[in-house]
Amino acid sequence: MKEQSKIEQEYVTTQLDAINEALSNGLFVHVRKMLHSIPPADVALLLESTPVRNRSLLWKLIDTDYHGDVLEELSEDVRNGIMREMVPEKLADALEDMDTDDLAEMLHGLPDRVVQDVLESMDSMDRARAEQALSYGEGTAGFIMNTDTITLRPEVSVEVILRYLRLKQELPEDTDMLYVTNRYDKLIGTVSLTSLITAAPEISVEEIMEEEPEVIKVDMDETEVAKLFERHNWLSAPVVDANNQLVGRITIDDVVDIIREEAEHSMMSMAGLEDEEDTFAPVLKSTQRRSIWLGVNLFTALMAAMVSDLFEATLSQLAVLAILNTIVPSMGGVAGNQTLTLVIRGMALGHVSASNSRWLISKELAIGFLNGVIWAVLIASVVALWKQDYMLGLVIAFAMLVNMIAAGLSGVILPIVMKKLKIDPALAGSVILTTITDVVGIFAFLGTATWLLL
Amino acid sequence: MKEQSKIEQEYVTTQLDAINEALSNGLFVHVRKMLHSIPPADVALLLESTPVRNRSLLWKLIDTDYHGDVLEELSEDVRNGIMREMVPEKLADALEDMDTDDLAEMLHGLPDRVVQDVLESMDSMDRARAEQALSYGEGTAGFIMNTDTITLRPEVSVEVILRYLRLKQELPEDTDMLYVTNRYDKLIGTVSLTSLITAAPEISVEEIMEEEPEVIKVDMDETEVAKLFERHNWLSAPVVDANNQLVGRITIDDVVDIIREEAEHSMMSMAGLEDEEDTFAPVLKSTQRRSIWLGVNLFTALMAAMVSDLFEATLSQLAVLAILNTIVPSMGGVAGNQTLTLVIRGMALGHVSASNSRWLISKELAIGFLNGVIWAVLIASVVALWKQDYMLGLVIAFAMLVNMIAAGLSGVILPIVMKKLKIDPALAGSVILTTITDVVGIFAFLGTATWLLL
Repeated sequence: MKEQSKIEQEYVTTQLDAINEALSNGLFVHVRKMLHSIPPADVALLLESTPVRNRSLLWKLIDTDYHGDVLEELSEDVRNGIMREMVPEKLADALEDMDTDDLAEMLHGLPDRVVQDVLESMDSMDRARAEQALSYGEGTAGFIMNTDTITLRPEVSVEVILRYLRLKQELPEDTDMLYVTNRYDKLIGTVSLTSLITAAPEISVEEIMEEEPEVIKVDMDETEVAKLFERHNWLSAPVVDANNQLVGRITIDDVVDIIREEAEHSMMSMAGLEDEEDTFAPVLKSTQRRSIWLGVNLFTALMAAMVSDLFEATLSQLAVLAILNTIVPSMGGVAGNQTLTLVIRGMALGHVSASNSRWLISKELAIGFLNGVIWAVLIASVVALWKQDYMLGLVIAFAMLVNMIAAGLSGVILPIVMKKLKIDPALAGSVILTTITDVVGIFAFLGTATWLLL
Repeated sequence: MKEQSKIEQEYVTTQLDAINEALSNGLFVHVRKMLHSIPPADVALLLESTPVRNRSLLWKLIDTDYHGDVLEELSEDVRNGIMREMVPEKLADALEDMDTDDLAEMLHGLPDRVVQDVLESMDSMDRARAEQALSYGEGTAGFIMNTDTITLRPEVSVEVILRYLRLKQELPEDTDMLYVTNRYDKLIGTVSLTSLITAAPEISVEEIMEEEPEVIKVDMDETEVAKLFERHNWLSAPVVDANNQLVGRITIDDVVDIIREEAEHSMMSMAGLEDEEDTFAPVLKSTQRRSIWLGVNLFTALMAAMVSDLFEATLSQLAVLAILNTIVPSMGGVAGNQTLTLVIRGMALGHVSASNSRWLISKELAIGFLNGVIWAVLIASVVALWKQDYMLGLVIAFAMLVNMIAAGLSGVILPIVMKKLKIDPALAGSVILTTITDVVGIFAFLGTATWLLL
């Protein structure tokens, strides 16, 4: 089981090593040949695993016929970097004959000026398709759909359909479903390939079609599209406009990308990173991108310091408080972030709603209290033994209890409130939460200490 | 765009509210009726959004014919809770006729004793299938595959195949591909439904089949399976044993689950949570699960306190150091976690390997240095102005620079080393990293202060 995975990993690593070595030895003809012997997805992986400096060199060695296929497989950040360096005519060539959904995604990442240049270099049919795709906003069903649907009329027999398909020779990629429309182009049913194959030749489409199929509106949010696919285990789904006219179809391969992005989004946001951040981006770009988050953190760290500053007199009398001052905020931060992460995931999965949030709040309050008691007793014992001061143990125990309750409550209330205010809790939740647990923790600890120990 | 998403969300919330209200009013007949009017996936969502106490009540109101379908849609933690409360005979009934992959997943989560009871209650055919599925380990291709493949012989004509399929009436769910085997049951090719439809009736399977198709070995790790599916945009893939005999097929719907789980795994692990943690689990269970992580954190917080303790004399002379002592560790923690998150994701996507890790280390070193300079200048200015002490500003600036470099280096080196040692960096990386940035930060700040300010 582990063996296979190692082989796969080694295979990619070996390729990478071989190509890198050939590159640095200037064996460009050799590299060019190697790049043609592997599938586009592997070339994309190679580009993504290569520092930016070598990336453009590598790109130039890839045959231009191959460019479109590789671009489709690249992650957004890396792709945009490469496309910006291409001349518009070459880019237009690479984008030729691409599926509408991929075309929209490619062009979306480029500056408007470049998009104009590329559109002008395209032939009129491609340009029309590209403009159409771009007209739906990013993140909508229209943006991720393909327009290559096969439509049938209800009265035609299965035999005729099969003959027609045989004449067509090839069906669009990932076709599992044909669509039945009436003469106003309105979608009235779907016929799966399997039912077409198993049906008697003489019966009509109408008799085997699924009526009133579930459809996706062209302006539906892609997150909702992904949820519907997951919920119904679809391979593809028809997309209709406001008049119920069929405008395209969405296939599972594009949905898989959305599912991965959505799931990664929370993790990356919680660390203050952008989803599409390129691991091998240049130093300056990376530093700049990460600095916002560090700036916010510096601000909150200064806030915590100012709270401590209020107790300067106490701290100067009892240095031991300075030593222990970080423990309570740290525990509160971890406990609060656990709750926060769980609630953010629950929201993403659609589990958390108005009807159960009160229950969830009381649950986390109870956990916070229980956690508080457990860790208060433990830290009190450790401190009392270490510093031989029972009163000090009592003070830190009280602060721990208060902060754990605050952590549990803010971990569940913060994301719920933020969602209502339409702020992404994955992005800002963690930093606000840590500020709360820092401030409450320091106040509770140094405040109680000032009151009881001086 | 937002409208549709709101409607979807409201629809689920409204259902939930209506059912909860009916439940608390004791309108069980009404609830039972409501539960039957919605698809199994929605019933599953309802159960997952319901606190544990009401969950078993809700479960009892679901028609037993429906149990299997709902169980398939539930997340692991919630499902295990429900299955453990069912009597083995009922559970065996619910699992009847389930796909092999689903069967394996269901039984896997149960204690051995219960599995034995359930197996004994099954009819012999179901039992054989279940035992077969369980014999492959969890997390392997064999565990997630279905055994319902349709196999063809190479010499048969398309017409005969189509006639045979028409007789069968129904194809297994999500069939997009038929498999061609020789008389030793070895897989020699695949035929897609689309090519079967578009082929001329008189030609043989051999002429339209794809030879030497890419296959999945039955013991391949599911993570690798998911990577292959993503890389090749497959809808399904054949699974073969060591002798290249066809044993089953894996379909995209199961792979989607793996992709989601993998992506969520890192986020949940980094907060010290289990992937499958149920948002609505009882308080005691949740407290217990989260306590390990809090315990580890308490230990590291105490370590940081002990480092501060070394400088007690300094702290007692200069209380201002106590106030500023948390800033440098906090910034180091954030910067280090950014790098760590990025590297962990890069590893999951297969971008980070031996051949580029040296480049990555020097990149993060450079970012650490640059970050260090930027934030050192900023914090020095703030502290110098706030506390009117230029020397103090210099001290904290130096500590910041040192800690930012340490953060960048450990953020990239830690996960690489941990992966070599076969430790999951998502699980333990963050806590080790924070310990390093805490210790280095405090040492650098209080150490330099002791040296220069006293």
